[in-house]
Amino acid sequence: MKINGIHYRSVWLADDGHTIEIFDQTRLPFEVQIIQLRTMQNVATAIKEMWVRGAPLIGAVAAYGMALAMRQDNNDENLQHAYATLIKTRPTAINLKWALDRSYRALENTEYSLREAIAYRIASEIADEDVELCRRIGEHGLNIIQQVATKKPAGEPVNILTHCNAGWLATVDWGTALAPIYMAHDAGINVHVWVDETRPRNQGGLTAFELGSHGVPHTLIADNAGGHLMQHGKVDLCIVGTDRTTARGDVCNKIGTYLKALAAKANQVPFYVALPSPTLDFTVWDGVKEIPIEERAEEEQSHVYGINPEGIRSWVNTAPQRTACGNYAFDVTPAEFISGLITERGVCEASAEGLQMLFPDLCKQQS
Amino acid sequence: MKINGIHYRSVWLADDGHTIEIFDQTRLPFEVQIIQLRTMQNVATAIKEMWVRGAPLIGAVAAYGMALAMRQDNNDENLQHAYATLIKTRPTAINLKWALDRSYRALENTEYSLREAIAYRIASEIADEDVELCRRIGEHGLNIIQQVATKKPAGEPVNILTHCNAGWLATVDWGTALAPIYMAHDAGINVHVWVDETRPRNQGGLTAFELGSHGVPHTLIADNAGGHLMQHGKVDLCIVGTDRTTARGDVCNKIGTYLKALAAKANQVPFYVALPSPTLDFTVWDGVKEIPIEERAEEEQSHVYGINPEGIRSWVNTAPQRTACGNYAFDVTPAEFISGLITERGVCEASAEGLQMLFPDLCKQQS
Repeated sequence: MKINGIHYRSVWLADDGHTIEIFDQTRLPFEVQIIQLRTMQNVATAIKEMWVRGAPLIGAVAAYGMALAMRQDNNDENLQHAYATLIKTRPTAINLKWALDRSYRALENTEYSLREAIAYRIASEIADEDVELCRRIGEHGLNIIQQVATKKPAGEPVNILTHCNAGWLATVDWGTALAPIYMAHDAGINVHVWVDETRPRNQGGLTAFELGSHGVPHTLIADNAGGHLMQHGKVDLCIVGTDRTTARGDVCNKIGTYLKALAAKANQVPFYVALPSPTLDFTVWDGVKEIPIEERAEEEQSHVYGINPEGIRSWVNTAPQRTACGNYAFDVTPAEFISGLITERGVCEASAEGLQMLFPDLCKQQS
Repeated sequence: MKINGIHYRSVWLADDGHTIEIFDQTRLPFEVQIIQLRTMQNVATAIKEMWVRGAPLIGAVAAYGMALAMRQDNNDENLQHAYATLIKTRPTAINLKWALDRSYRALENTEYSLREAIAYRIASEIADEDVELCRRIGEHGLNIIQQVATKKPAGEPVNILTHCNAGWLATVDWGTALAPIYMAHDAGINVHVWVDETRPRNQGGLTAFELGSHGVPHTLIADNAGGHLMQHGKVDLCIVGTDRTTARGDVCNKIGTYLKALAAKANQVPFYVALPSPTLDFTVWDGVKEIPIEERAEEEQSHVYGINPEGIRSWVNTAPQRTACGNYAFDVTPAEFISGLITERGVCEASAEGLQMLFPDLCKQQS
């Protein structure tokens, strides 16, 4: 997507054909800083320090890390070392292991001299495939937005509420929940996005940055506001992403998603979840009972980054001294609250039947 | 309630018998700073600059402002000037006008030499009456908490979720939603409070400060977390305050209250609203349709106060540049989501019938 009219992906090859470039996402939304990654170690740092985040993006960047490793030294020992180093950078990202395995398997029985070129090709394929997945999600979601748009009075925008950041910064391009929104905007549909701040980590700032950079009208709101807006007809539909969707269509996503889904149901607002099929988990049925919810550091709740009056990015503690903070990272929205799942193969009901219809192959393979 | 073992009200007379003392609430929860108000003008500044906030507290402090005015100059001109100055300090606080009217009416036909003493007496009565109102709310709410406590396994706390600050800092003592919690704690019941951060103004910090200072176990959480906690049985009941409750029991309160009420209903968690009868408005029936919701400055959403790494209180901008922010201050929770209203006269159903039963006098008077 675009920043100041220039098209970017969230990871790309520099003009020299081998250096990897990314945005330092820990500086966003305050500063746009491009970082060059020239070694496998640079890539490991970039993932570990969360300069890049979002499962699909982490996978693609890690694959480029394998390529840089093969450029540095293409022998077996370094291949194994690179895999071992990169796999440890984040504890739970499924895409990370998947991408590293794909690269490793292609390289292990390959002649040393070919390894660098193959590793670059695989990284580039992984990135391109992710873009294609998101593009298709975007097209299927666009149909939904178009249908809503036809029912709006002339001149009134389609108001879409989203939570967290499921945009191009979390993938390689387009994003998941935001892909349909970008496509609608690019197609000339009048869209306006309500962006949930998404405490405690304020990923709404990333979403607002993305939308603003691409020119999509939006308003940043407190996570508390969505219910009121829906009560008053100010939300036409909700689209969110997901970290994991179960066999019956329960959706695990950023904490607070469930509250918005409850409000949407109570106010007859369609509530869609956009997901690439790799986030489907057919081994889990009841999301509320079966998915363990990560509890993260208290500091993420008590502290926040912002620009101080001197223009410097500052990390401030907003909580009283000695107050304990809870930090639950995700919640589960039961399928009954979800109007539909927007996938790369089309839109389906959030149910076992709906998912089986679209993904008979994955369903059989996993269960 | 207590700070470090010492009992405080949120406004009191200094030892000299005429200076008024308050906490500068704009410094809380970061610094506890007591401020002396020695003139009517000091009081006007304290209300205007929000050193004091919360309708009941504003009313009491304004009444003390009238007393200081009469101490400065007890003639008619100054009486009128004090009323005119103080009434302008906040635009919409109903208690402010009510307290000033009460003082003014008692003073206007009174001999000059008696005015100071009478004005102090009235201010002190207003403060004491507020404490008594809150104390009774506390007692009625305590019964509810006691009933829940008897059903909890030994050693397990009663987990209570609250939103915003409806504590003693918003009243003169006890608070409304927090009064039952203080009483339960003081009665030896094992209570633990989930404190919603309450974006955008973070009044959860005030609640956490209050509870921590009094020694009540609590955890500060993102506004997003309550739904997840209720899904998992980690909330036994919710108690919140209200700014205005309609004839049929719809509750207008801090933005986000409605989302918690939806989650409570969906998960069979009792959801109570604590209110002193002055916040009842029998002239309004349908809260969602009839109550206009104040939209406040964007800065309250984009910016936040916190302590920076140097230990200094700092005001930082957490939003991306050029992003517009929405700031809806309140929302309305329809009566159907409310388990009961805790008032100074007892607990009633959130319905026209429930309110008529407890408040036949007010109901007739207002409608």
